[in-house]
Amino acid sequence: MDISIIVIGDELLIGQVIDTNSGWIARHVNPLGWNVKSIKVIGDNEKEIISAIDEGFANTDLVLTTGGLGPTKDDITKEAMRKYFGGKMIYDKEIKKNVLEVVEKRHLKINDLTAAQAYVPDSCRVIQNRVGTAPIMWFERQGKVLVAMPGVPFETEQMMEREVIPQLMKHFCSNESIEHRTFIVIDFSESALAIKLEQFEQNIPKYIHLAYLPRPGIIRLRLTGRYPDHAQLTNDMNKLSEQLHAILGDSIISYEDKPVAAILGDMLRSRGLTVSTAESCTGGNVAHEITEIAGSSDYFKGSVISYSNDIKHRILGVSTDDLTTYGAVSQCVVEQMCENVSSLLKTECSIATSGIAGPGGGSQSKPVGTVWICVKCKTRIYSECYQFPGTRDRVIDRATMTGMLMLIKLLRENKETEE
Amino acid sequence: MDISIIVIGDELLIGQVIDTNSGWIARHVNPLGWNVKSIKVIGDNEKEIISAIDEGFANTDLVLTTGGLGPTKDDITKEAMRKYFGGKMIYDKEIKKNVLEVVEKRHLKINDLTAAQAYVPDSCRVIQNRVGTAPIMWFERQGKVLVAMPGVPFETEQMMEREVIPQLMKHFCSNESIEHRTFIVIDFSESALAIKLEQFEQNIPKYIHLAYLPRPGIIRLRLTGRYPDHAQLTNDMNKLSEQLHAILGDSIISYEDKPVAAILGDMLRSRGLTVSTAESCTGGNVAHEITEIAGSSDYFKGSVISYSNDIKHRILGVSTDDLTTYGAVSQCVVEQMCENVSSLLKTECSIATSGIAGPGGGSQSKPVGTVWICVKCKTRIYSECYQFPGTRDRVIDRATMTGMLMLIKLLRENKETEE
Repeated sequence: MDISIIVIGDELLIGQVIDTNSGWIARHVNPLGWNVKSIKVIGDNEKEIISAIDEGFANTDLVLTTGGLGPTKDDITKEAMRKYFGGKMIYDKEIKKNVLEVVEKRHLKINDLTAAQAYVPDSCRVIQNRVGTAPIMWFERQGKVLVAMPGVPFETEQMMEREVIPQLMKHFCSNESIEHRTFIVIDFSESALAIKLEQFEQNIPKYIHLAYLPRPGIIRLRLTGRYPDHAQLTNDMNKLSEQLHAILGDSIISYEDKPVAAILGDMLRSRGLTVSTAESCTGGNVAHEITEIAGSSDYFKGSVISYSNDIKHRILGVSTDDLTTYGAVSQCVVEQMCENVSSLLKTECSIATSGIAGPGGGSQSKPVGTVWICVKCKTRIYSECYQFPGTRDRVIDRATMTGMLMLIKLLRENKETEE
Repeated sequence: MDISIIVIGDELLIGQVIDTNSGWIARHVNPLGWNVKSIKVIGDNEKEIISAIDEGFANTDLVLTTGGLGPTKDDITKEAMRKYFGGKMIYDKEIKKNVLEVVEKRHLKINDLTAAQAYVPDSCRVIQNRVGTAPIMWFERQGKVLVAMPGVPFETEQMMEREVIPQLMKHFCSNESIEHRTFIVIDFSESALAIKLEQFEQNIPKYIHLAYLPRPGIIRLRLTGRYPDHAQLTNDMNKLSEQLHAILGDSIISYEDKPVAAILGDMLRSRGLTVSTAESCTGGNVAHEITEIAGSSDYFKGSVISYSNDIKHRILGVSTDDLTTYGAVSQCVVEQMCENVSSLLKTECSIATSGIAGPGGGSQSKPVGTVWICVKCKTRIYSECYQFPGTRDRVIDRATMTGMLMLIKLLRENKETEE
C-alpha cells in the first residue's frame, strides 16, 4: 500500500521546527510492507491543506496528516478537514472526558481553548488521544482513508503505535513481503566501498535494492527487498548478507542498524569491560551518546568533564608543566587525561578529547577544528590528532563519533591479538 | 518570491535519515522575504522527480532540490534533470579539477565513481561545490529557476551561504519587507498563554501573524510581519514587543530565538558567575547542551558524570549511608551532588540530576521517569522531584531542559532579591 504524509505547520516552512514525525512514521510503517510515496510539508493554510489532500488521494490509498490541531487560532487543520469531508462541527462528550483526564494528569486546569478540542466534524470517526488534548480524526472517502494526527511528536508516536497502526492494519492488508538488512561499515569512503562492491552489486536480484547511506566515519549499507514469496526473499537476503560478510569482514562493525554508541556498548558488555570518559572540547557529548543507550550502566561508570585547565590538573592529575609547555590541546595532555580518568573511575577502557571546537580559540599552529583524541583499553593506549571541518556543533559531533570508533577499532585489534 | 523545496532520497521515505536541509534552507531564505511554500520529500525515482519539478514550477518561481547527486548507482537526480531540461551529458574540466582538490584535502584518492561527478547536462550552469564532489547545477526555464544541490547537509549549507543565495539574490529581487520577533516564554501552558494574550491578539494588525511554538518547558511566541513599508513594519513590531513585555514581564526569558542553554549562559556571563554539573541519569547531556554554545568556557568549568554509586561517593563525596538508606534517586543525594560538585570544581552555581531514565531500573515507589533535580547559586539551593513521561531519550531531554530552566528561575529570583 502506498501512503502520502502531509505535515502541516507554518513553523516548519520557516525552519523553526524540524519535522521528525514523517521520519518516525516512515520507519514504523515500512516493516509492514507499506510504502511512503511522498512527504509534503505545507503551512497552516486551508487552500494548501485541501490541495495536498487531493494530491494524496490521487496517488495513494492512505493519507496521514500531522499538525495544526492545537487549541490556538493559528491551527486550522480541523476546519479544513470539515470543509473537505463535509458535515458540521459537533460536541463530543468522550473527547471532553479524555481532555479532562489528560489535563489532570499534567496537574493543569482545563480552560476554554482546551475545552474547544471537544468539537470535531461529524464526518469523522474519533480516535481518543490518550496522551494529549487534540483528538485524532479518521475520515474515509471512496475506499481511501485519511487520519489526522497532532503535530507533537510524542503524541503522534504514542498514538500511532497504540491505535492508528493497528486500526490501519485491520482496514488494509498487504500481500507483499518486505525485508531490510543494514550493515554498518567502517574503513571505507563511499566511492571506495562502491568499487569494492561493484561485482556484488551486479549480481543482486532485481527486486532487491542496495543503498549507501554515509554518515561521518561510517557508511550504512542497506539492502531492501520486496517480494510476494516471503521464504524466497529471506533466503536471498541471507545469501547476500553472507556475501557481504565474505567481502568486507571486520569492516562490518554491525549487522543491525544501531547507533555507534550501541555497537561500542555491545562490544564492551560482551567482553566484560567498563568505560569512562575525560572530555574537554566534546563537553560531555561522548558520555551523553554512550548513556543514551538503554542498559549502558552495565559498562559506563562516569566521566570528568574538564573544561578548565585547573580541573584537568586538580581532578585528572594532568601535569601543570605539560599544560604550560604543550598546551591543553596536545598529545601528552590528552594521553594523561585518558590514562588518569580510567585509574580515577576504575575502568579498563577510556576515551579522552581535547581540542578547539570554535568559533574562537584557534591559532595558526592549532586552528579551530584541531582535536586530540586518545583511547585506552587495559595496557593499550592510542592517540591521534584530527582536523575536523565545519561549525562548532559539527566539530563536537565528529570528535565524539571518532572517539567511539577509535575505541571500537582498538577493541577489534585486541580481539585479534587474543585469538 | 515563493519557493518549492524538493528533497530527494529513498532513505528519507523509510525514515532512516531525517531531512534537515529543508529546515536550514527555510530558516535562511526567510529573512530575505522569500517564502517557502511547500517542501516535498520523494524517493530516488525519475518519474517522481520529474512530476515534483512540474508541480514546483506550476506553483512557484524557484525550485530548490537537495539529494540524489552522490557517486553511487542509487543516485539518479542528475540524469532525471537532464531528461527534464534536455541536452546531453558533457565532461566538465573545471568540475574534475575541483573534485581533485576536494578529494586531496580529505587525504583520499580519486576513483572512477568520484571522477564521474565531472559529467553534467549541458543544459545547466555549474556552481562548483567547494566542499564536496557533487557539482551544483543551475537550470532555467521560462524565467523560472531550479538549483540542484547535494544531500549532505554540510555541503548544501556551506554552498547555499557562499554561492547559491547570493546568486539567487542577484537573479530575483524582493520588494516586501519581512520581520520576525521571537519571545521565549516560561511559566505558562500553551492554552493558558493564549488566554492571557486574547486581547493582545485581537489588536494585532492583519499583516502580522502570531504563532505559538511549544517545546518542553518553554513556549516560543513568534510574530511574523510582511509589509511593503519597512519603517511602518518595524514600528508596529516594536509596539507589539513592548505590549508583550508589559503583559508577560519576567516570564519572557529571551527576546531572541536562542537555545535555553544560551539564555542561561548569557545570565551567568552578565553576572560573572560560573557553573558546573553533577549528572547521573542525564549522563553528561546538561554539560553537552551548555558547551554547545560558543563561548561557554567563559562560565562553564566542568562536570562529574557519576553513573555509579562508587563515583557518587568517592569523587562527589555523597554519604554512603545516605546512598544506602535513601537510594541514589533521592533528595538528599541530589543535593549533596549539587553542593559538592560546586565546591570540588570551584563554581558559584551548579546543576545536579539523579533519576531513572529507563526502560529498566524502575520500581513501584520510583517508576521510570522519576528524576530528582537540584540547582544551586551561592548560598541558595533548590531541589524538586519530577515524573517525566516517555522514552529514555525523552526523559533525558526533559530532565536536561528542566535543570537549566530551574537554574534560570533561581537566577531570576536572586536578581529580584538583589534589587
